[in-house]
Amino acid sequence: MSRPPGRKQENHKISRELFVLTYGALVAQLCKDYEKDEDVNICLDRMGYGIGIRLIDDFLARSAVKKCRSYSETADMIAQVAFKMYLGVTASVSCSSAAGNEFSLILDKNPLVDFVEELPAERASLCYCNLLCGVIRGALEMVHLAAEVTFLQDRLKGDAVTEIGITFLRKAEDRKHKRNK
Amino acid sequence: MSRPPGRKQENHKISRELFVLTYGALVAQLCKDYEKDEDVNICLDRMGYGIGIRLIDDFLARSAVKKCRSYSETADMIAQVAFKMYLGVTASVSCSSAAGNEFSLILDKNPLVDFVEELPAERASLCYCNLLCGVIRGALEMVHLAAEVTFLQDRLKGDAVTEIGITFLRKAEDRKHKRNK
Repeated sequence: MSRPPGRKQENHKISRELFVLTYGALVAQLCKDYEKDEDVNICLDRMGYGIGIRLIDDFLARSAVKKCRSYSETADMIAQVAFKMYLGVTASVSCSSAAGNEFSLILDKNPLVDFVEELPAERASLCYCNLLCGVIRGALEMVHLAAEVTFLQDRLKGDAVTEIGITFLRKAEDRKHKRNK
Repeated sequence: MSRPPGRKQENHKISRELFVLTYGALVAQLCKDYEKDEDVNICLDRMGYGIGIRLIDDFLARSAVKKCRSYSETADMIAQVAFKMYLGVTASVSCSSAAGNEFSLILDKNPLVDFVEELPAERASLCYCNLLCGVIRGALEMVHLAAEVTFLQDRLKGDAVTEIGITFLRKAEDRKHKRNK
């Protein structure tokens, strides 16, 4: 994952409010376009994937991180460095499988839902922030890590926290990483 | 326009790259939804309007600006304070009418098009950043200033700069402001 910083350091920050409201407009448009929540979720994930595969270069250039040597390190990198860089918050990480390939990123506060009070009753299955899952999935794929990324808990649905589950899929890679430890 | 700071100062910044790519996904979705560029432009403007009428409270709280006493001051406020706060750039302002109600905001660099190389040939009439016009129009309306806001020049269309035109519409208000000077 190492790469020299590629672009001039500029002001890379914008207001979260504008982003959050623009994201809300995007979700609202998709809810107009698709009747089924499931289709909106798929669309958000697909859009996020497209964003993730482009965002990874920016991340590698700006973070100048070294190659992660384990799934655990990778999950920490997403939760501590990438979330901070892109959303201005960090997540806590817990490993949720004995095999060491399943992780939960837990957000006490999800900045994407700042202006959302609750989901309308007819949109109870909507994963409002599903774009994030796609972004993570796309970015991981570009560093040769296949993963499933889904929301496990969502404050918008009454859960106490927001929890994103990441399951790394490449068992072969996993074994190699373990040997190298 | 004066109002006490209303919320706790938090980290209000996020990465511009994520915003720019998410905005790109929104425009791409609308281009799927609507065949005509004009319809995409209208939709972006309408979405922006909805964002602007919500964003104004955030702006007034965080900027703690005093009431603007003229159209010229208002245009400067948008170009220097609001653009900086929300997009991380400032615009230069020129007054383009003898009546003093038409202004141009000129951006040397438009952060929203960072990842856009050029518009596809079949989308030549697309105002890619039209959301911004709607945001400005919506925000102004909430402080009782009716305005028309449109793109006059667009680097995506080969122009040398990006230029947003603002025409304030309330002549009566205008006269009152002038008397008070």
